[in-house]
Amino acid sequence: MDVGRRIETALDVAVSHLEAPGAPPQLAEAIRYAVFPGGHRIRPRLCLAVALACGDDDPAASDAAAASIELLHCASLVHDDLPCFDDAATRRQKPSVHAAFGVPLAVLTGDALIVAAFETLARGAARRPERLAALVGLVARAAGSPAGIVAGQAWESESYVDLSAYQQAKTGALFAAATVAGAAAAGAAPLPWRLLGECLGEAYQVADDLRDVACRQEEIGKPAGRDATLGRPNAAALLGMGGALDRLKRLTREAIEVIPTCPGLETIRAEIEAQSRLFLPASLRPALV
Amino acid sequence: MDVGRRIETALDVAVSHLEAPGAPPQLAEAIRYAVFPGGHRIRPRLCLAVALACGDDDPAASDAAAASIELLHCASLVHDDLPCFDDAATRRQKPSVHAAFGVPLAVLTGDALIVAAFETLARGAARRPERLAALVGLVARAAGSPAGIVAGQAWESESYVDLSAYQQAKTGALFAAATVAGAAAAGAAPLPWRLLGECLGEAYQVADDLRDVACRQEEIGKPAGRDATLGRPNAAALLGMGGALDRLKRLTREAIEVIPTCPGLETIRAEIEAQSRLFLPASLRPALV
Repeated sequence: MDVGRRIETALDVAVSHLEAPGAPPQLAEAIRYAVFPGGHRIRPRLCLAVALACGDDDPAASDAAAASIELLHCASLVHDDLPCFDDAATRRQKPSVHAAFGVPLAVLTGDALIVAAFETLARGAARRPERLAALVGLVARAAGSPAGIVAGQAWESESYVDLSAYQQAKTGALFAAATVAGAAAAGAAPLPWRLLGECLGEAYQVADDLRDVACRQEEIGKPAGRDATLGRPNAAALLGMGGALDRLKRLTREAIEVIPTCPGLETIRAEIEAQSRLFLPASLRPALV
Repeated sequence: MDVGRRIETALDVAVSHLEAPGAPPQLAEAIRYAVFPGGHRIRPRLCLAVALACGDDDPAASDAAAASIELLHCASLVHDDLPCFDDAATRRQKPSVHAAFGVPLAVLTGDALIVAAFETLARGAARRPERLAALVGLVARAAGSPAGIVAGQAWESESYVDLSAYQQAKTGALFAAATVAGAAAAGAAPLPWRLLGECLGEAYQVADDLRDVACRQEEIGKPAGRDATLGRPNAAALLGMGGALDRLKRLTREAIEVIPTCPGLETIRAEIEAQSRLFLPASLRPALV
């Protein structure tokens, strides 16, 4: 099965468990709506790419790791879009979850997806308890506080913002989790893979800033120009378009260079190059060459 | 160390990790505010009572299980109090988290506490990976959907409510998790302990209904009469005070009877009797005799 198919299948299995008989029907519907159809699934693709590079000797564990990362990403999108944060009416070319289902179910959808991330790990790595123990710790660190995506979002409520902590937590943490969890799921040492995830997280942040400044809403599926509206820092605004593109290119090169030695080194290099091109929407990709 | 002290210490350790250098300060403050000072800590007491009855051969694992259950309970209180749900201005005799810190930080406090529950398990049971695997699955089931506290809250957004599924998920699930997680943390088979948790969860629900109908806000630390205001089912309203008290007594007796055979049977029987008296506030306890 190709990687994209593995990810969609693993997510479908995870979401199906939340639709079992007895589930509140609207919550079940909102959860599926929040997860499907997805975006580029960049984080779970990265997770599986690392697992494959490390031998992928237990695909159920790797799939669970990849799905848990994407479920947490979806949870953060649902909560970040709430009226009390970004107040975003659209996401992935359709109404955001609270716009479609109301604020109460959007709060609960995010909550359920956070829990489902850990339940998915417990189910998929049940036959490998030592790997599961590592995975729960690595994924929790990327999700919570002091340094995960919840902490990242919380920096927006602070009057003094530590910019590097903010971006590292809000974007970098889940990319780093994708790489270390991919390694842990395949029984490899996770830590050597952290730097790759951190580089790619920073690159993604720059690309996201470029999209926010340079693209129209129709292309990126969510409102454009939000950083300026909400007074958030933006690399393209700070460095100019050319400066931000240079930075993105440099970070992508760095990412390729820091990939640890592993059985599938050539394959994962090509995969990371291909994936990082997807960070930018089609209209901006020619500028990367 | 006595049980109450063990619980407060385990919770303090869990919360301290969320206050590590680099944490967003207001989020860290809100998290501590949500967890301390606590209520009767009924669920973690139950969890430790079961762990002790099963031999408690790894106190770090038992403490982590107890703390994770209480962190999830605190998370659910913070989110349930939000304006989009119960809109409760007070909780545990002080302003609710959103009243004190604003809605955005209250949403994130709940999120962070959910993640912290699993991180606490991963940390406390790291040396017992097989037990950790069981614990993550059991705790996740009680927290999420289709049958955990998130699903329980989601039933309030449905036009047709399955009353038994609602109460079982909203209250029963975490009591059942407390007993099965206590057993699993001590290396015992968890399933025989589920019925005890379910009985006590149902008893607690009846007691909570009695408090809502019969007590003043000053005694219970949160607004009274909310079920009638919000149109929610209430055992004391349905059965009358006497009927609800009879039901509570019967459920408590049943709970004592279904305790599985275990090394510490006499002690846990006494403990359950003592704890279940705490379900009711002081003014209603004489009616139990």
